[in-house]
Amino acid sequence: MTGQDRIPVTVLGLGSMGRALAEAFIRAGHPVTVWNRTAAKAGPLVAEGAAHEEGVAAAVAASPLVVACLTTYGATLEALGPAAAALDGRTLVTLNSGSPADARRTAAWAAEQGARYLGGAVKNVPTAVGAEDTLLYYGGDRAVFDEFEPVLRVLGGDTVHLGGEPDLASLYEMAVGGTLLPALVGFFQGAAALRARGLDAASMVRFSAKWFQMIGSVLPVFAEEIDKGDYGTPLSSVNTFLAGAAHDEEFGREAGLDTEWHRPFHDLLRRAAEAGHGEHSIAAVTEVLKRPAQAA
Amino acid sequence: MTGQDRIPVTVLGLGSMGRALAEAFIRAGHPVTVWNRTAAKAGPLVAEGAAHEEGVAAAVAASPLVVACLTTYGATLEALGPAAAALDGRTLVTLNSGSPADARRTAAWAAEQGARYLGGAVKNVPTAVGAEDTLLYYGGDRAVFDEFEPVLRVLGGDTVHLGGEPDLASLYEMAVGGTLLPALVGFFQGAAALRARGLDAASMVRFSAKWFQMIGSVLPVFAEEIDKGDYGTPLSSVNTFLAGAAHDEEFGREAGLDTEWHRPFHDLLRRAAEAGHGEHSIAAVTEVLKRPAQAA
Repeated sequence: MTGQDRIPVTVLGLGSMGRALAEAFIRAGHPVTVWNRTAAKAGPLVAEGAAHEEGVAAAVAASPLVVACLTTYGATLEALGPAAAALDGRTLVTLNSGSPADARRTAAWAAEQGARYLGGAVKNVPTAVGAEDTLLYYGGDRAVFDEFEPVLRVLGGDTVHLGGEPDLASLYEMAVGGTLLPALVGFFQGAAALRARGLDAASMVRFSAKWFQMIGSVLPVFAEEIDKGDYGTPLSSVNTFLAGAAHDEEFGREAGLDTEWHRPFHDLLRRAAEAGHGEHSIAAVTEVLKRPAQAA
Repeated sequence: MTGQDRIPVTVLGLGSMGRALAEAFIRAGHPVTVWNRTAAKAGPLVAEGAAHEEGVAAAVAASPLVVACLTTYGATLEALGPAAAALDGRTLVTLNSGSPADARRTAAWAAEQGARYLGGAVKNVPTAVGAEDTLLYYGGDRAVFDEFEPVLRVLGGDTVHLGGEPDLASLYEMAVGGTLLPALVGFFQGAAALRARGLDAASMVRFSAKWFQMIGSVLPVFAEEIDKGDYGTPLSSVNTFLAGAAHDEEFGREAGLDTEWHRPFHDLLRRAAEAGHGEHSIAAVTEVLKRPAQAA
């Protein structure tokens, strides 16, 4: 951590994640300056040793490295507007969700202000920030990443450079993160079904966590099928999932649950079967997700 | 493994999972008899030392413990029809998917034939059968489970008795397993998006597996919120997910993907927000999944 040892860092945006980032930098001994639209949120961090600036330009001017953790790229650009001139010669790192297109817009805007830029994503919850196993990934100029990697590693030991394009973290963030809401709704449905039987949702947690681990363990097989476009030797076929679809409905009815959200999944299965993928791997659904109109 | 040491076991149904079960029993030294509607599937197992019966009644008569691994409870009952008389005094264990109602019907039918019954589920892929960490759970008479637990443990070291009701494995199977298709479709979408950018799906596997692990790690929090009905101190709020919904659409458009399946999820988020859960935990979606018409 040679030259980067304890360089000053500015954190913009003090939601639960921004607060966790600022605390990790403080714990690692960096002089930290914080800013938030609602100044009151800075209080606890000031108590822990952070400097607080009311104005975003002053906050940006305080450090060579500026980490922005606002809700969206739009909110980030809006917040940074008054600090545009102050960004010249500094490095801006964004850690928010948003589309790849928004990431590219943000990168272009940062370049216009004379700032270097890394677009990043935190793939974990605020309480995991700073842990050895916590994953954060970044896209953007490799030299910039290399220069600040020791500082960024303070936020999580699994710190990865995805490549030179500034929207890669956003791309992977959405590609990877797109499983969250559907997976959670599946869990909530299961919890509701257990509650309907007078059982606690807590009783399924261990099984569900193990199930997610199992799903993770089969992803290499599916990825290989998708990359090769060869779905001919299925671990589990589209027809197997179609057969399960009927049980899903009966299960939902018995527990008195709204299962409307199953319908598009069953449609995808049926479309995959109609396209000749019935006895192929469930990963063939990937082909159906590619809109025909835009297929190569 | 005292009295149960190497008792004869019959396996009915030789799909990839049934085959894996039979192989595990053979490896553990049990005399194994196999039966399958399509007799040809028995060949490899006979080569490994199994006995094969063309008739299901003879297969059932060969062992005190009969493990059925057909696609559904309906298929199981249909296959067992000619073996009804042979089941008297034996123990039937089912390891298939299906609804709790079908599990209860199967238990009732088995009781009519004078058979003892455990309804089970394998929570993993065939290649994981026999491993120390592999989870299987069972519902049904505790005494029957206790008697055969050492034999059943051959199939996976994490062998669990859920309770005395014979449909509990089916209930948990569907409660836990309901995350699989939505989680996989989320992954396939991400894979398609990476492919559209000229990147391999394999490049996201490590990140996705870690992401599923992260999801597993937050389930205790959600389960507690659901069990208490208290969503007031959110790790992540419904509104946060609603804000992300807009990015989802933009992301899908950019990658040229069919995102129709997002719509019901966004509807659930909106309905949760309309019900006053906007600033509550995302787990409050559980309340929306309970159909109002059947709410207590």
